[in-house]
Amino acid sequence: MSDAQATPVKVAILGFGTVGSSVARILSDSKPQGVELTHIFNRSVARKKVDWVSAGVVWTEKIDDVLASPVDVVLELAGGLDPAGEWVRRALEAGKSVVTANKKLIAEHGIALDKLARSKGCNLFYGAAVAGGVPVIPGLQQGLAGDQILRIEGILNGTCNFILSKMEDGAELAPVLKEAQSLGYAEADPTEDVGGFDARAKLVILSRIALRADLTTNEVPCKSITEIAAVDFAYAREMGCTIRQISRAELHGSEVLATVGPMLVPQASPLAWSRGTENMVLVGGTYGGDVVFSGHGAGGHPTAVAVVSDLLAIVHGSKTIDLPSKKAGVSGDFLLRHYIRFIVKDRPGIIAQIAGALAEQEINIHAILQKPGHTKANLPFVVIVEPCPSSALKRALEKIATLDCLLEPTLDLQILEPEAEA
Amino acid sequence: MSDAQATPVKVAILGFGTVGSSVARILSDSKPQGVELTHIFNRSVARKKVDWVSAGVVWTEKIDDVLASPVDVVLELAGGLDPAGEWVRRALEAGKSVVTANKKLIAEHGIALDKLARSKGCNLFYGAAVAGGVPVIPGLQQGLAGDQILRIEGILNGTCNFILSKMEDGAELAPVLKEAQSLGYAEADPTEDVGGFDARAKLVILSRIALRADLTTNEVPCKSITEIAAVDFAYAREMGCTIRQISRAELHGSEVLATVGPMLVPQASPLAWSRGTENMVLVGGTYGGDVVFSGHGAGGHPTAVAVVSDLLAIVHGSKTIDLPSKKAGVSGDFLLRHYIRFIVKDRPGIIAQIAGALAEQEINIHAILQKPGHTKANLPFVVIVEPCPSSALKRALEKIATLDCLLEPTLDLQILEPEAEA
Repeated sequence: MSDAQATPVKVAILGFGTVGSSVARILSDSKPQGVELTHIFNRSVARKKVDWVSAGVVWTEKIDDVLASPVDVVLELAGGLDPAGEWVRRALEAGKSVVTANKKLIAEHGIALDKLARSKGCNLFYGAAVAGGVPVIPGLQQGLAGDQILRIEGILNGTCNFILSKMEDGAELAPVLKEAQSLGYAEADPTEDVGGFDARAKLVILSRIALRADLTTNEVPCKSITEIAAVDFAYAREMGCTIRQISRAELHGSEVLATVGPMLVPQASPLAWSRGTENMVLVGGTYGGDVVFSGHGAGGHPTAVAVVSDLLAIVHGSKTIDLPSKKAGVSGDFLLRHYIRFIVKDRPGIIAQIAGALAEQEINIHAILQKPGHTKANLPFVVIVEPCPSSALKRALEKIATLDCLLEPTLDLQILEPEAEA
Repeated sequence: MSDAQATPVKVAILGFGTVGSSVARILSDSKPQGVELTHIFNRSVARKKVDWVSAGVVWTEKIDDVLASPVDVVLELAGGLDPAGEWVRRALEAGKSVVTANKKLIAEHGIALDKLARSKGCNLFYGAAVAGGVPVIPGLQQGLAGDQILRIEGILNGTCNFILSKMEDGAELAPVLKEAQSLGYAEADPTEDVGGFDARAKLVILSRIALRADLTTNEVPCKSITEIAAVDFAYAREMGCTIRQISRAELHGSEVLATVGPMLVPQASPLAWSRGTENMVLVGGTYGGDVVFSGHGAGGHPTAVAVVSDLLAIVHGSKTIDLPSKKAGVSGDFLLRHYIRFIVKDRPGIIAQIAGALAEQEINIHAILQKPGHTKANLPFVVIVEPCPSSALKRALEKIATLDCLLEPTLDLQILEPEAEA
C-alpha cells in the first residue's frame, strides 16, 4: 500500500511478557514495511528492557503517556479483564486501532468493543484470542463467511491436551499436571485451564464468529478434566476412543447447544489425533462440509504471529467482515451416547439398581464393560448408554448417587459421534 | 457496513456450471445484505436457465453486455486461460472487482492481474483457486502474514487423493480411475489431475502467497500417480507409510525446492490421514511452527463457499494484505530418502549391479525389501536409499535402466520425512 509506505503506522505494545516480547522480536527480525514500534508499556518497565529493540522505542510504565501519544495501533497483550479492558476502551475512544490476544475480554465485552471501534472508524482485531498461531478466526471471518456454519468442535486449551495426551500414553494426572506446570504450560492454580474456563471463553468467541450466536459465558456448562483417571483411558481404548477436552457448540434455531469438558472421542476423528499442546478446530458448514484447522495454539511465538498478522491487516487497510450475530440461549442438553464410570464396593444387585434408575428415565443401556484385574472392594465398571438427553441422565445419576455401594462420585462423559465419511 | 446497505453491490456470474450454479444457490438461500445478483453469463444460456434465481437477473450469452453493464463485481467461474483470462482483464480494466476460482489463470498471470487490479483501485480475490472450500489462501494472507513460512506440503488434488486412498484399501488403479470418472471427480482425459498439473498450478499460487516466491509453473517437476501399483502400497505399509500425491515447496534463499507427485508418507503424518477427495495443506513457519488446514477441496458447494466469502470480503471493504513476492528459481533436488521399486526377471547378480550403480553416485542403501509370493520370472523388490540428491539418484537409475533383467521401468518415489514431535 502506498499509504503504508509513506507514513509508517506507529505501534505500541502493552505488556512485555512472553507474547509481547515475541511480537517485538518478530517486528525486529522481519521489519515489515510501513510499521514502526514506538512504545513498550509494562509495570516496573526497567526490569523488562532488552537491547535488541530499536533504540528509538519509548519504554514506559505510564499508560496515559501511551494513550496520549500519536500511536496509531495499540497491541494489548497484558490479558485479563482489568485494567486491560479499560486500556482497550480508552485506545478505541482516542481513535486508535487495537489488536488484542485477550480471550476473556473479547468473550465478555467483544460486542460492545466492536461497536465502539466501528463508531470511531478504527479497527479491533483479535485473531490471537483463539488457538494462537492457528488462523481460525481469519479463516472463519474471511474464508468461510459465505457458508452457514452449524457446528464447532474444538480442542482449544493446549494445557488440557498436553495432560490428556500424556495420560493416553499411560501417565497419571497428578504428575503430568506438575510437569505441565514446570514446563510453563499450566499456572500454579490450574483451574482456568483444567476446569474448562479458558476454553469456554474461546468457544464463546468462536460461536459469535462462526454461528453468529452471542452466548452468555457463564451459561455454558464446564466440566473439569481432573475427574479423569487412567482406568478411563483403558476403557476408552477398548471402545476405539480416546479422551480429549472438547469445546462444542451446535446451532439449533435460536438456541445453541454448548459444553466444555472431557469427552470420549473416536480414534477415527481428527480430534483424536491432536497431541501435546496442539489446538484443533473443526467447523461443519451447510455448504462446504467439515473444515479442520490445527497447529500450535499457545506459546509466545505462535500467538505473536497472530498478533503481527492482525497488525499487518490493519496497516494494509483490511477490514473484518462484520456479519451480524444474535443473542442465543444456551443448552447443554446434547442427545448423545454417554460413558458412565462407577467405582463401587461390589455386592449383589448393583447393576439391577443402576439399570432401574436409568429405565425410569427411559434411558437404554448399550453395553456394560468390566475389565479384569480389580478387587471387589474397589471395583470400577462402565455403563454405556444409548443417545439420551443429558438432563434425563442427570436425574438418573442423582438417584444412583444415593446408593450406598458408590466409593467415588460417578464420572459421566459424553461420547462424540464419529462423523459420516466424506 | 453502512455503504453496503445503502447501495447493493451488483454481481455477475460468468459460467453457470457446477460452481456457478452453487454460488447462485447460496446467494439465493442466504441473501447476504448489500449483494445483488444482476447477470448470469454462459454460452447457449437458454439451456442453463433455472427458476429459483431472482426474476430480475439478466441471463445472457453476450460477455460485452456484462462488461458494459454497471456490474461492480464479476465472479469468473468458467475456468481455463482463454477466454476467461481476457474477461478478467477487461473487467479489471473497466474498474470492476473480480473473484475467480481459476487456478490456471492465477498461477500463470496472477502477478500481472494483481498489478492491474491495484492500478485500477479494484480487487482481485481468488480464495477458491486452491483447496476450494478450505480457507487456505485467506488463512495464509490474513492469519499468517506475520510469520515467515519456509515450507508447504499439500494434498491439492482431490481426484488423486480419492484414487490413492482407494488403492490403499486394496483397489487397483484402472477400476478406481473409472469410478472417479463416473462420480464426476475425474475428467474423460484425466491427465491434468493424475499427471500433477492441476496440483502444480495450486502449488505455484501457494508458493507466491506463503513463501513469497514466484515460480515458473513449467519448471516444477511433476510425476504421474499412474506408475503406482498395488504392490507399492504393500511395501509402503511394511515401512509404516502410505502413498499420497504430495505437492511440496521449500524456500532455500532465492531458490525453491518444489515437486509434485506420489510420495511415501509416514502414517504418523497428518497428510496420511486424508481420505477420499479431501484436500490438506501443511505450512511450516519460522515462528508459529506447523499449521494444518483440511477439508473438502472440490465440488460445487465447497468451491462456491470460497467464492461467496471473497465476494463478501469485497462488499465489506476488506483488502488482501499485499506482501511482495520475488522471482525464484526452481529445483527438484530434495535431499530425501527414496523408495525404488524394480520388477525383474530374476537371475544372479542383479542386486550387485544395482548396488554398484548406486555406490558410483555415493548413494547408500538403507534396506532391501522383497515380499514373498512372487515368481522369479516377474519379481518386484524394493531398495530404500538413504537421503541423497534426486539428481545423483537420477544418474544411477539411468545406468540401472540399461540392465537386461528389468521388465518394467523402475519406480522412484521420495519418502516424506516425519516431522519432529511438537
